[in-house]
Amino acid sequence: MKAALLSVGTEILFGQITNTNTVYLSQKLNSMGIDVMYHFTVGDNPGRLAEMIEISFRDCDIVITTGGLGPTQDDLTKETACSVMGDSLVMHKDILESIEKRVLSYRTVMTDNNRKQAEMPSRCRVFYNDAGTAPGFALDRVNPQCPEKKQWIACMPGPPSEMMRMFEKSVMPWLEELSEGALYYRELRTFGIGESALETSLLPVIDGQTDPTVATYAKTGECSVRIASKRKTREEAKEAVEEMINRVMELVGDYVYSTHGEDYPSMVGRLLIERGITVSCAESCTGGKFAAALTDISGISQVFDRGIVTYSNAAKIQELGVKSETLAEHGAVSEETAKEMAVGIRRVSGSDIGISVTGIAGPDGGTDEKPVGLVYIGLAWGDEVICRKISRNIKDRDGNRTNAMLSMFDMIYRNILC
Amino acid sequence: MKAALLSVGTEILFGQITNTNTVYLSQKLNSMGIDVMYHFTVGDNPGRLAEMIEISFRDCDIVITTGGLGPTQDDLTKETACSVMGDSLVMHKDILESIEKRVLSYRTVMTDNNRKQAEMPSRCRVFYNDAGTAPGFALDRVNPQCPEKKQWIACMPGPPSEMMRMFEKSVMPWLEELSEGALYYRELRTFGIGESALETSLLPVIDGQTDPTVATYAKTGECSVRIASKRKTREEAKEAVEEMINRVMELVGDYVYSTHGEDYPSMVGRLLIERGITVSCAESCTGGKFAAALTDISGISQVFDRGIVTYSNAAKIQELGVKSETLAEHGAVSEETAKEMAVGIRRVSGSDIGISVTGIAGPDGGTDEKPVGLVYIGLAWGDEVICRKISRNIKDRDGNRTNAMLSMFDMIYRNILC
Repeated sequence: MKAALLSVGTEILFGQITNTNTVYLSQKLNSMGIDVMYHFTVGDNPGRLAEMIEISFRDCDIVITTGGLGPTQDDLTKETACSVMGDSLVMHKDILESIEKRVLSYRTVMTDNNRKQAEMPSRCRVFYNDAGTAPGFALDRVNPQCPEKKQWIACMPGPPSEMMRMFEKSVMPWLEELSEGALYYRELRTFGIGESALETSLLPVIDGQTDPTVATYAKTGECSVRIASKRKTREEAKEAVEEMINRVMELVGDYVYSTHGEDYPSMVGRLLIERGITVSCAESCTGGKFAAALTDISGISQVFDRGIVTYSNAAKIQELGVKSETLAEHGAVSEETAKEMAVGIRRVSGSDIGISVTGIAGPDGGTDEKPVGLVYIGLAWGDEVICRKISRNIKDRDGNRTNAMLSMFDMIYRNILC
Repeated sequence: MKAALLSVGTEILFGQITNTNTVYLSQKLNSMGIDVMYHFTVGDNPGRLAEMIEISFRDCDIVITTGGLGPTQDDLTKETACSVMGDSLVMHKDILESIEKRVLSYRTVMTDNNRKQAEMPSRCRVFYNDAGTAPGFALDRVNPQCPEKKQWIACMPGPPSEMMRMFEKSVMPWLEELSEGALYYRELRTFGIGESALETSLLPVIDGQTDPTVATYAKTGECSVRIASKRKTREEAKEAVEEMINRVMELVGDYVYSTHGEDYPSMVGRLLIERGITVSCAESCTGGKFAAALTDISGISQVFDRGIVTYSNAAKIQELGVKSETLAEHGAVSEETAKEMAVGIRRVSGSDIGISVTGIAGPDGGTDEKPVGLVYIGLAWGDEVICRKISRNIKDRDGNRTNAMLSMFDMIYRNILC
């Protein structure tokens, strides 16, 4: 199966937003064994949009669009897809009801353009939207060049959070129904190794690969390895993937924290809840990112008691009981301060685990002795207090903060949960 | 002048890299008054590349390619552009010398594929590469549909650092020679109004628009309005946009917080630093997202003292001095608790502003009386303590948390900074 990705939106052509949807969809489709042949972006213009759909269908079976499904006048993807695929819009009562329910929960009136969002192609498969008002859909037509074959278009909204939820919940299962043979894939998540080093370590299984395929992907602060196989049955594909996972684990197992694609905050949060281990955190350079990532998980209130962001020295002393002598002698960014912060947050919260972080995120504020990228993470549990030092030497504030936050999850996982 | 951007590289179609070149080039070209009509991405495949160049030329005057100019076998942009534009490759001695100089500075031998990089179209304009070995070039041909007009292709290397240097030093001056007119645009950011209501309010200026154009875009948790004009000079375009901004402000000014595209955390953080107003926060349902967003800003340590994430009732009582009677009588999610949290964080931190949030992010945990999406934000400064209630009734944990976080910035801006 071959696919084209078609992004709709003048804001992309203006360079106002970075098109991350195509990155996400390319990774997902490739990992499902669907070849991505093109990325196209057009503005909110039905003529050019229709032309690009037809151009895509010259050598692709599926066109996946994002954007242009909103309630406003320049949102014309639905109408255009309908006319290219030979269908027409009709009002879907159940969609209208769900939009009404959503809109009236935060506003007093439904507008005509909200009502328009409930009009959908008559013979489409609807993809419901959990996170916004615009539903998505899939439509097919007979391939004009080859009448025994079909062509498909799937249309999703542009905002990444809506699109990703819809893709995972509805579009992926639909694509799995369409594709011949059975695909099985797994994502291994690693932490603490860069992408080029990871790929070099995996060369024995990457070189000359046909099936299963093994590919590395860099994510923010970490890398993942995707292993995919397409066989006659799902069982055969699964077996081939699992065999390859064993080989990959022999080569880079030390860095793998999840063999099922689960990210660090979700995995650590799940394990803490399952085992009833409580945690509190004291953050400096990450400024609340660890607490924010952990509390993304529904139900975490069972084990997360409190987090304190101590940006000033006064806050470190008052909130956590860090000694002023420690700050004077070793500085706020030091092993000693990190350890006292971890012990302090554990004491004030009464949690099983106290985790702390202090560092220099940059871009400014570094010295020769304590450069930007220097971070200390403290961990206190039971009678133990340990500290990890990280020296990245990169003036990338966001990268340093994300890396420090993920390292906190890594510390908890490696020392307590794994 | 109309342009298409054509990115060449299988790694983009695999989702292995994010295409930031198109964002950069779109911004640059639009600001020069050149309309970007399409973004296309194809793999390292000369047939599809040639086809996309021809498709672009149907309604564009210029095609700008990035990628595929490297020394390896799959780099075929130069050969393909040459054949589409009706030219052939010849060895350029001065380029060969400069590549030799660069290569021999870090390696002992020139390889054949380095030598191949000095072969360029016979009648091209060369763009020298300060940051790598692959030179770029521009070529023209007579428009086959309209022989009195010309069509141009400009080819640049894919690595962003090489491409950006080449664009600024060589391609931009070349484009300025070719183009007519200048574009000016501004982005207005709004909070507290949905995209469909925003567009409905703006219909008087959106309907029948030609220049300036007015368009609305939904972002995560908020919407923006883009106003653009293209005139003979930048001054004329700027004047037209500013006049339109005045009309837009009359219609939806109550919701606009920035007329220069600045986001809420950056703007509020900047204003707090400029005015030396200190702030601390107490978060419950947002779990640290407010503190994390504020501390994204370099230099914020001047005004941000501390943040406390009080997930448990015990933490609210111990850290912030919330009364246990208040929690028993009104619950953790209530106006009374929000106000006591704001007053408490202001007292313990000694900051000028204390801001708090408590709510039910969902998807679970709601009741009939206190449904998912109910959020209270408390703000204490000087002798005042106020509270804002938000009822969204949406079971979207991430959306509720983001909306609550942005509302905290909105409370500070509307009540203290604006």
